Amino acid sequence: MRQLLPDDVIWRNVRLATMDPERNTPYGMVEGHALVVRQGNILDIVPESSLDAVQGKTFDMQGRLVTPGLVDCHTHLIFGGNRAAEWEQRLNGVSYQQISAQGGGINSTVAATRKASADDLLAIARARLARLIKEGVTLLEIKSGYGLDLPTEEKMLQVIAALASENTVEISPTLLAAHATPAEYRDNPDGYITQVCESMLPLLWEKGLFETVDLFCESVGFNLAQSERVFQAAQALGIPVKGHVEQLSLLGGAQLVSRYHGLSADHIEYLDEAGVAAMRQSGTVGVLLPGAFYFLKETQRPPVELLRRYQVPMAVATDFNPGTSPFISLHLAMNMACVQFGLTPEEAWAGVTRHAARALGRQATHGQLKAGYVADFVVWDAALPVEILYEPGRNPLYQRVFRGQLK
Amino acid sequence: MRQLLPDDVIWRNVRLATMDPERNTPYGMVEGHALVVRQGNILDIVPESSLDAVQGKTFDMQGRLVTPGLVDCHTHLIFGGNRAAEWEQRLNGVSYQQISAQGGGINSTVAATRKASADDLLAIARARLARLIKEGVTLLEIKSGYGLDLPTEEKMLQVIAALASENTVEISPTLLAAHATPAEYRDNPDGYITQVCESMLPLLWEKGLFETVDLFCESVGFNLAQSERVFQAAQALGIPVKGHVEQLSLLGGAQLVSRYHGLSADHIEYLDEAGVAAMRQSGTVGVLLPGAFYFLKETQRPPVELLRRYQVPMAVATDFNPGTSPFISLHLAMNMACVQFGLTPEEAWAGVTRHAARALGRQATHGQLKAGYVADFVVWDAALPVEILYEPGRNPLYQRVFRGQLK
Ligand SMILES: [Zn+2]
Ligand SMILES: [Zn+2]
Repeated sequence: MRQLLPDDVIWRNVRLATMDPERNTPYGMVEGHALVVRQGNILDIVPESSLDAVQGKTFDMQGRLVTPGLVDCHTHLIFGGNRAAEWEQRLNGVSYQQISAQGGGINSTVAATRKASADDLLAIARARLARLIKEGVTLLEIKSGYGLDLPTEEKMLQVIAALASENTVEISPTLLAAHATPAEYRDNPDGYITQVCESMLPLLWEKGLFETVDLFCESVGFNLAQSERVFQAAQALGIPVKGHVEQLSLLGGAQLVSRYHGLSADHIEYLDEAGVAAMRQSGTVGVLLPGAFYFLKETQRPPVELLRRYQVPMAVATDFNPGTSPFISLHLAMNMACVQFGLTPEEAWAGVTRHAARALGRQATHGQLKAGYVADFVVWDAALPVEILYEPGRNPLYQRVFRGQLK
Repeated sequence: MRQLLPDDVIWRNVRLATMDPERNTPYGMVEGHALVVRQGNILDIVPESSLDAVQGKTFDMQGRLVTPGLVDCHTHLIFGGNRAAEWEQRLNGVSYQQISAQGGGINSTVAATRKASADDLLAIARARLARLIKEGVTLLEIKSGYGLDLPTEEKMLQVIAALASENTVEISPTLLAAHATPAEYRDNPDGYITQVCESMLPLLWEKGLFETVDLFCESVGFNLAQSERVFQAAQALGIPVKGHVEQLSLLGGAQLVSRYHGLSADHIEYLDEAGVAAMRQSGTVGVLLPGAFYFLKETQRPPVELLRRYQVPMAVATDFNPGTSPFISLHLAMNMACVQFGLTPEEAWAGVTRHAARALGRQATHGQLKAGYVADFVVWDAALPVEILYEPGRNPLYQRVFRGQLK
């Protein structure tokens, strides 16, 4: 191997679940090798036997399992207010109409988010993020979408930037201005889409506040024509897109996302074979969100067999949000993907590493243990990767390494 | 109010979700009152205004919510080995028959538990228990049942006694020798039941190692006649009983439990109206175990509407065990009881406090905040009880008090 430098760090005596498909082993498992880190990146994975005259710093992991850092590629982590009381009303039999009429639903989150200061939103989001970090998450996506006006969407994106600058996790920020029609535009959703396309999107892009554009294409969100206008505006500026599609009904949103070479089509419970074929064609990742499926008591499952047959990569994410998936555990989401959707544990792991990195356009640098990739990884007090999702509530995390540093 | 003594301790500025039905408010909520603790018990709940000239020690809770300590009335917390790899095989499509033929299933847990030393079992169980304690559990039930021979059932019960002696939580120990037929008796389950009734049950009772007798009445467990023999043996010694019944099919186990005035009938997905009526008659608690329902991908839900109509108290528990419910979170079980079974949050709370205490025969001392009850309670960084189950993964516990002590 290459000459080691004094600042290199070596993790020895590990079982490496590299998640690298070129290894051709389950989980890309490699034994008897060490992980060499240089300046925040993985320099190499080398046989233990080649390390006899090692100079660098060494950690002896005593046979522990090492995986890539977890990637949560779909979250709504930043919002004000609390919808617990509303959830209780629903469970007590109050209708959604009544709750909406009281100012509940997404409107209550929008109102609370508009009202909250950036500092307050940052403090709340930091506490939520801490729980994901504790589970071994090293990269996550965070969406705007509870502002639905220019100043609040910008405030949310600024909070994301502030969180990212704390340098404990990497964040992929997404503009989700087309999340819902705000009350001000209730009778004019097309007018709101114009506002998104002509004002919010270009102005916030110019400020460098996000890297992807997302939207909610659904009967209760925006229709195909409205969604396409947003994608066109994004495309004109060269911004990658993705979409919340086929969650409650089949509208053809996945095909729309695919026509715009979208990074991912998310939810996709009602996705059909034509949509799967389109995603295959465009290299679009299917993001499964079992927390929302569970919380909404959905019975239609995403077409996992079709996604497998067409070799569409499947990611798994928390979809953490106050209305439909108030779960801040990626381990639990992995478990639910297996129990509810029939994924294998290896598929669930690919879904929070390699495929989730692809959904964020970072497949060349994240989601695998591989020379040249970032040194974001987790050491577990476990022998097998399945142990991390088998027993929700137990978190066998031993060390979390972000950019080569224990954090 | 009564004269306070110097060692009395007062929790002031609290919102008390007493769970006391005599309060006639949701959650038995009381505001503007303080909780007075003397020598490990609740001395009284008194208006703040009556406390002007207080002498005792005082904690100012700044308006936080206080609930009874949580009660997990059905767990299999003590076992050796690990079934994660077996779960992965099942998700990968290996049949239950193949896994059984490899020595998997409950037999692998029995083998590992027989092999493990008491010290090892204690250390493992202590780590599991710590996670429940962190969630605010102050009383839990733990079953034997992975020994299936006299020495190992005794070893498990001794481990439970050792855990209890650490005095951080109260434990209700249960003999579940009739959990499954051990391999040695494969062709002679009646012979094993004889062994349970004539040897294990009386010998371990004489040693004072358990307080209740449980069994698994099911096509894959023991039939009604075998189950009744166990209950008769228990009755002859005056030992309270309960049963795992109607989980996978309707056998009439709930009626059997009721005929023996059982404390609880557990699982009960397939329970019918005759069984519900019998439980009502005998005062038997219905224990709902949504973790097992979820993990087994069961679709038959327990008859919640019938249980309500007959006013049968419903408890909610984790059923923590390696084969069918490897979840060590009572908060998640409460959430699942609402989402999967349609309980209201208030019913879920009653299920882990007042009704769970009843399922353990402790309704006169546990599960409510009430004068004369034990001072086991939790102070939460929350305003509403629903917040504790709304967002699994977030644990807003602020203080846990066991027998009047912060622990
Ligand atoms: Zn979403
Ligand atoms: Zn059980």
